[in-house]
Amino acid sequence: MEASPQPTSPGWRLRAYSIIFESDTPAGRTFDIVLLCAILLSVLAVMLESVHRINSLYGPTLRAIEWVFTVLFLIEYVARLIVVRRPLTYALSLLGIIDFLSVVPTLISLALAGSQYLLVIRTLRLLRVFRIFKLGQFVGEGEFIVRALKASRFKILVFLTAVLTLVIVIGTLMYVVEGGQNGFTSIPQSIYWAIVTLTTVGYGDISPVTVLGRTLASILMILGYAIIAVPTGIVSAQMATPSAAAPPAYKQVICHVCQATDHKPEAEYCWRCGEKL
Amino acid sequence: MEASPQPTSPGWRLRAYSIIFESDTPAGRTFDIVLLCAILLSVLAVMLESVHRINSLYGPTLRAIEWVFTVLFLIEYVARLIVVRRPLTYALSLLGIIDFLSVVPTLISLALAGSQYLLVIRTLRLLRVFRIFKLGQFVGEGEFIVRALKASRFKILVFLTAVLTLVIVIGTLMYVVEGGQNGFTSIPQSIYWAIVTLTTVGYGDISPVTVLGRTLASILMILGYAIIAVPTGIVSAQMATPSAAAPPAYKQVICHVCQATDHKPEAEYCWRCGEKL
Amino acid sequence: MEASPQPTSPGWRLRAYSIIFESDTPAGRTFDIVLLCAILLSVLAVMLESVHRINSLYGPTLRAIEWVFTVLFLIEYVARLIVVRRPLTYALSLLGIIDFLSVVPTLISLALAGSQYLLVIRTLRLLRVFRIFKLGQFVGEGEFIVRALKASRFKILVFLTAVLTLVIVIGTLMYVVEGGQNGFTSIPQSIYWAIVTLTTVGYGDISPVTVLGRTLASILMILGYAIIAVPTGIVSAQMATPSAAAPPAYKQVICHVCQATDHKPEAEYCWRCGEKL
Amino acid sequence: MEASPQPTSPGWRLRAYSIIFESDTPAGRTFDIVLLCAILLSVLAVMLESVHRINSLYGPTLRAIEWVFTVLFLIEYVARLIVVRRPLTYALSLLGIIDFLSVVPTLISLALAGSQYLLVIRTLRLLRVFRIFKLGQFVGEGEFIVRALKASRFKILVFLTAVLTLVIVIGTLMYVVEGGQNGFTSIPQSIYWAIVTLTTVGYGDISPVTVLGRTLASILMILGYAIIAVPTGIVSAQMATPSAAAPPAYKQVICHVCQATDHKPEAEYCWRCGEKL
Repeated sequence: MEASPQPTSPGWRLRAYSIIFESDTPAGRTFDIVLLCAILLSVLAVMLESVHRINSLYGPTLRAIEWVFTVLFLIEYVARLIVVRRPLTYALSLLGIIDFLSVVPTLISLALAGSQYLLVIRTLRLLRVFRIFKLGQFVGEGEFIVRALKASRFKILVFLTAVLTLVIVIGTLMYVVEGGQNGFTSIPQSIYWAIVTLTTVGYGDISPVTVLGRTLASILMILGYAIIAVPTGIVSAQMATPSAAAPPAYKQVICHVCQATDHKPEAEYCWRCGEKL
Repeated sequence: MEASPQPTSPGWRLRAYSIIFESDTPAGRTFDIVLLCAILLSVLAVMLESVHRINSLYGPTLRAIEWVFTVLFLIEYVARLIVVRRPLTYALSLLGIIDFLSVVPTLISLALAGSQYLLVIRTLRLLRVFRIFKLGQFVGEGEFIVRALKASRFKILVFLTAVLTLVIVIGTLMYVVEGGQNGFTSIPQSIYWAIVTLTTVGYGDISPVTVLGRTLASILMILGYAIIAVPTGIVSAQMATPSAAAPPAYKQVICHVCQATDHKPEAEYCWRCGEKL
Repeated sequence: MEASPQPTSPGWRLRAYSIIFESDTPAGRTFDIVLLCAILLSVLAVMLESVHRINSLYGPTLRAIEWVFTVLFLIEYVARLIVVRRPLTYALSLLGIIDFLSVVPTLISLALAGSQYLLVIRTLRLLRVFRIFKLGQFVGEGEFIVRALKASRFKILVFLTAVLTLVIVIGTLMYVVEGGQNGFTSIPQSIYWAIVTLTTVGYGDISPVTVLGRTLASILMILGYAIIAVPTGIVSAQMATPSAAAPPAYKQVICHVCQATDHKPEAEYCWRCGEKL
Repeated sequence: MEASPQPTSPGWRLRAYSIIFESDTPAGRTFDIVLLCAILLSVLAVMLESVHRINSLYGPTLRAIEWVFTVLFLIEYVARLIVVRRPLTYALSLLGIIDFLSVVPTLISLALAGSQYLLVIRTLRLLRVFRIFKLGQFVGEGEFIVRALKASRFKILVFLTAVLTLVIVIGTLMYVVEGGQNGFTSIPQSIYWAIVTLTTVGYGDISPVTVLGRTLASILMILGYAIIAVPTGIVSAQMATPSAAAPPAYKQVICHVCQATDHKPEAEYCWRCGEKL
């Protein structure tokens, strides 16, 4: 068990590994595309089942489809476990957990009705989509966005802390000013309103009525309108700096198993899960 | 059939070509401006016809105007086909198809009531407006925006994939949390709500009621407020880079027939439809 | 009549000019501050008069205040006309017209009730506020914003044309898809809805109900969320370019009469109205 | 009284100072984290008390918790006063006032019911959170944002003045156009609507009904959608400039007492409150 996919293992295992985990060979690429379609179809089935009218007409069919996909994904999950060099590392990696959670809810739904809706967690499996295009530009571009966000994470955290403080203080003020009869029935409720307003969503389910309340709300709106410039400015400035535009000499490669990127140019094994690159 | 507008063709054809397709001559400019006014008026007529009160008063007049414009546009379309060097290339180019679709709905409306509203597709003909100003700055500026968006297309796609995944997962969670009695009647419905919230539109036709739902909604709103920084940052950074600011030495010229730009400096024929520049 | 404020004119005229039009002397500064307070108070009086409850209590008082301010502004306007070198140029400049319009509505309201609300046009007189701070940073900063917007005007126009075309086409589609019973009673109405949605305002007075309509609306929302990046990117890139950051060697001076800026360093007379700087 | 925390003072005072005001020692760090938890819990207690259902069940418990925290914070406040070198400077600094206001409302609530909600002012004490992480990146990043905003303050003020003028003029126009029966009952009300619309919040509690009103509203929305580019552009450009990216050689240090930053590299005492750094 020193090398990935176990060099001393029989030929079928090596082949299976390259089909299931890689997408350089035609077979591997086909496998990935079929898998993506299966994921999309199964998510669609879960969605349609939730629509009352469709459920009353085609309910049993949809539930059958769900079971078929669940069994298929279960087989796929077991196959991944068998074929990979370090099953435990895979099982505990982010993608491994998502793969596991994509199968479980249907089984639980036998005991607990309603839990099958958790199947939409399968949507997260679509993240694999990027592997298929790994030779394309997507990895680099995704990397670029993630790197810019990472580099700005302290600034964004400072910004969010300021926003939360503002929202709590103004929310409480509005609770005192407007009072329960205008919809501001409690401080958490008022904070919810303040978030709805500051982010310029503005449902209108709660809205100020008194003159003082409207004045406060106007100030909050103009603040929200102005301070959206802060995160935007942070990310723009980060993306415009040369260091972000010209990424360091990382290998543009994704680990087959845990999808980690940012490998050093000379790396032969994934720095996160130890899989061979 | 070697040169555009057919050098061996009679003089009237050459003249007609320069009037209909070019706008360098006074006659060509006048033709274009008259055409734009006709397009605006016909779109206005279609709009007014849809207003119940106006329709009951001036319905027949508006329908007559529609027919007059349709016949005029039909004549224009046929004239374009006759005069152009490669009629088929024109007919299959984007602008050719739009010109064709601008005429068809009125004819169909004889058989199928209501289809005349598709006439607003004529609005797309207004894209020709840029040709009139081709000596001005518009081509360059339009080019600039399109080039910046093109250069960011992978980043924007990655961003949209992330947004869609987020919206599906949170939409389903809200369906489980809030349930049908609060308006979240199905998963697609909840996803619609999540899009309305994340994009900060916030109609308020569906809005969370439970404490857990409101907490989730607050997180989604703050996320939506923060991640709008990503597309903005991408486009800003792209536009601020020197390569985007100083465009390559392309010819600032639009093809008369298919409106293609980005011709090489030494190009004499359009790279897309083969028309003479 | 060669020089501003008429060198051959008596001393009182020169003094009056420096008080009314300039703000370098203590007297001129005091005049400007008193004027600004008067403008703010008179606008406030007009606003309060429109509130029913306040009007029924203090109506006559408010109307008296209005008349006092109108007479004062009329005197000021006449004084400006007498004192300035070229009365006609002042009267026809933007600020001269605003000064005139600030007086007229009260007079008209004698004949036509309701017209006194047009007095809020006085708010525009507050633009003079920048003159008071002319030694400060405001002129430069205002200049900076205006210059960046001017430099981007073609890009913004192209963007607005694209937005309008999009809004017309999607508005009409929604009219066909949703129909009158869901609030989309006419094409102009649907276009209004499309603008409300694209700009992420989202009143919720009209909102889609059918599945197809909601799908279309979702696309429009995500588009609106994404394309806001375009104007932001344009202005950011413009402001970040060195040419915008380091303004050319213009004189940081505002014309006393027409408030024009951007004078050449060696200029002694305003390029717009001919007043001495 | 020459040095902070009074070098001639007994050892316990020096120790107490380093625990309460600094966070370099384990004891000081523990004190700060306990304090933050206490603040969060006490704010939570105030919030929950405002929820009617929770109040009727656990009201007395919550009020007891409030009193416990108030007494603790009072002790802490007195300790700070005793231990600090210049008690008056601390008491009059921003943080000193916030610390004082965090204790007072509970005492007042004995006489005046409802005033305990002002306790959320305690949230502002969370600003201390940044001190704990002072060795981290937070100070620098917070500094970066504040410096960019400060550098843009004139531009933002000019922008806000323009926005307010726009909102007043359009608000009044809408009042004249729509009139009271459509919700635009007074000019201040209409200005409130204009702010709700321009900032793209869009509650929908007031929305235009007439054709002219909707046209005006559409223009305002597109304006609001476009001019959000201005503050964003200002802050982005400011953050992208090298002078902002590479901050001057200030000491990355916060004053223990008044939280001032931006100290000169050679500074040994806080420039604002005179405390030893």
